[in-house]
Amino acid sequence: MADKGGLEEAVVADISTSYIDGSIGKLIYHGYAIEDLAENATFEEVLFLLFKDRLPNRAEYEALRSAIARDAAIPDEVIAMLKSLPRETSGMAALRTAVSMLSAFDSDAENLTDKEAAKAKAIRLTGQITTVCAAWMRIAKGEEPTPPRADLSVAENFVYMMSGGEPDETACAALNVYLVLLAEHGMNASTFTARVVTATGSDMHSAIVAGIGALKGPSHGGANSAAMKMFLEIGDVENVVPWFEKYIRTGERRIMGIGHRVYKSNDPRAGILRRHAEALAESSGKRKWYDIAVKLAETARADDYFVQRNLYPNVDYYSAIVLYTLDLDIDMFTPLFAMARIAGWSAHVIAQMGGRLIRPKANYVGPFDCNWTPIDDR
Amino acid sequence: MADKGGLEEAVVADISTSYIDGSIGKLIYHGYAIEDLAENATFEEVLFLLFKDRLPNRAEYEALRSAIARDAAIPDEVIAMLKSLPRETSGMAALRTAVSMLSAFDSDAENLTDKEAAKAKAIRLTGQITTVCAAWMRIAKGEEPTPPRADLSVAENFVYMMSGGEPDETACAALNVYLVLLAEHGMNASTFTARVVTATGSDMHSAIVAGIGALKGPSHGGANSAAMKMFLEIGDVENVVPWFEKYIRTGERRIMGIGHRVYKSNDPRAGILRRHAEALAESSGKRKWYDIAVKLAETARADDYFVQRNLYPNVDYYSAIVLYTLDLDIDMFTPLFAMARIAGWSAHVIAQMGGRLIRPKANYVGPFDCNWTPIDDR
Repeated sequence: MADKGGLEEAVVADISTSYIDGSIGKLIYHGYAIEDLAENATFEEVLFLLFKDRLPNRAEYEALRSAIARDAAIPDEVIAMLKSLPRETSGMAALRTAVSMLSAFDSDAENLTDKEAAKAKAIRLTGQITTVCAAWMRIAKGEEPTPPRADLSVAENFVYMMSGGEPDETACAALNVYLVLLAEHGMNASTFTARVVTATGSDMHSAIVAGIGALKGPSHGGANSAAMKMFLEIGDVENVVPWFEKYIRTGERRIMGIGHRVYKSNDPRAGILRRHAEALAESSGKRKWYDIAVKLAETARADDYFVQRNLYPNVDYYSAIVLYTLDLDIDMFTPLFAMARIAGWSAHVIAQMGGRLIRPKANYVGPFDCNWTPIDDR
Repeated sequence: MADKGGLEEAVVADISTSYIDGSIGKLIYHGYAIEDLAENATFEEVLFLLFKDRLPNRAEYEALRSAIARDAAIPDEVIAMLKSLPRETSGMAALRTAVSMLSAFDSDAENLTDKEAAKAKAIRLTGQITTVCAAWMRIAKGEEPTPPRADLSVAENFVYMMSGGEPDETACAALNVYLVLLAEHGMNASTFTARVVTATGSDMHSAIVAGIGALKGPSHGGANSAAMKMFLEIGDVENVVPWFEKYIRTGERRIMGIGHRVYKSNDPRAGILRRHAEALAESSGKRKWYDIAVKLAETARADDYFVQRNLYPNVDYYSAIVLYTLDLDIDMFTPLFAMARIAGWSAHVIAQMGGRLIRPKANYVGPFDCNWTPIDDR
């Protein structure tokens, strides 16, 4: 029963979307180093790469960008549903419900077998999820949502819909890097969830909705907002060391955004996001949160527990700073992660279609041979 | 890489909810033979057994029954959402969306760690899912939904809300047996999905919504409606043999509702449901579909392919006949499966809470070391 619990040793699929070598902090998407992609690629190019196993030429890129933007509008019924939710509803619950509801308005939703139809649905969902995220952010504040524009990229459209004005170039560039870095990451828990759902023959929307539910967990995508709440709780760079010392005296060692199941040296995405977080901190004049994050990472690195276990800041740690500096509500951090990961999820879903039912075993430890007793004799 | 694909050999958890010995067709829920439970138990007693590891006394039973019934009403906002869906929306998509939306109106939805709170949420969801299923069945036909009654059991409430009149005793008894038989079944794909979601620390609603998405697949819960569509296509007992012969000439051998990943002799639930299907066929005067099902099962049993592979009718095969005879729309068959399985799902979710992230490996077969090329050079 070596696999019991986390299934760490089980191999569930051949994949060509991404390769991770956690021992040296290496991540590639279908052959391309994450550093090159973060430096050069748009999110749409990454989506194309994951779907087609190569980068698009100019015409293919523009076709994909405009397809996403054109279908990004969401039906009035979905907007009405979002408006009917209590404003304190979590962004992930709103997104999960909206994506589930969108299937009812997708005429191809129940096409369960055609991989080209699945790609087209994923492309529609990519734009629609962007719109849902921006719409919910506004609705939760009592503002009217802004519909998407057909001439923008995913990153630009989100910044445009969030702010309602002409999208700021620095913000769009930072958001694009975030989307590229978070687009795909092998057999993580939400991707695996989407694959388990797909292996029953279920539909794209069911798989993505399930992935959103898994990503919502604090040990997965929920870590970025948990990290930001921690930075806010610390409040000032002067408080980092006392906060850390008090925290470890409680016997607790798990710091949100530090450590990763796979990366045992560094998470390459963390370094890239750290540089973007620093640049945004400079340009926005809001250095405080970046400074707290850096100081806390240094403080943890001086603690034997973290050194011995090779615990470094992961992608969630610095993405919290990037997203906060972009003026996103903390509750929207994990929905933004989903907005990126739809790329990886849907590529995995399409690869899984037609595959074998995923159904591991359980080990029964309960009683046998109980005799039925009528209720009044119990 | 023995585990690749279906994870057949991986053991993912110790459980005490149910034990299956597929080689001899044995199923027990926490020590009690499924035959005894189908004969004697209400669905509420099974839910209590799965949550508390023992059967309830009279007072405990009544407390659970009334708690489920009392909280079974769903908010007007959820009814409005259901009414806004196109009528041809699949019942599972409607249910998935409604359950996701219900989290926004559950004040404890974001309590991620307290197991007693999780049980209370599961009890609320048990009643609410019953109401959503009955409401959607009426809304999809353009009828007003009927609110639940506080004095009824789950089976009675569903029959009441579906028909709007005093619930028929035979129908309630048959539905109760169906719910008991489908309540729990070890580490099946939807239960596993709910556990993977829970292992990220996510919430009860996210886990159940994900389970609904997995159950929707034709290789899982979707099999009962697919089986009924096949019986309708055959249309008459005279057509069974010619239909079967034509079907196997196409090279296809997979018959919906025949064969099971775990049961290699017989599925004990199928035998029980067959007897109920026969009784309902007699009492309703609608024998035709039962006769077609029996004849098709016999015809398949005379074919070497099915004999050699030990392929017998499973629970979905005869449950299709039971549900159809109860006047359920075929599209509602799988939602009714979810209405039963919420018991097992939530017991597994509660057991999984606080457990280790479930994240198997993937085997990368894509390229390495691709060089970035500017878009206009591609």
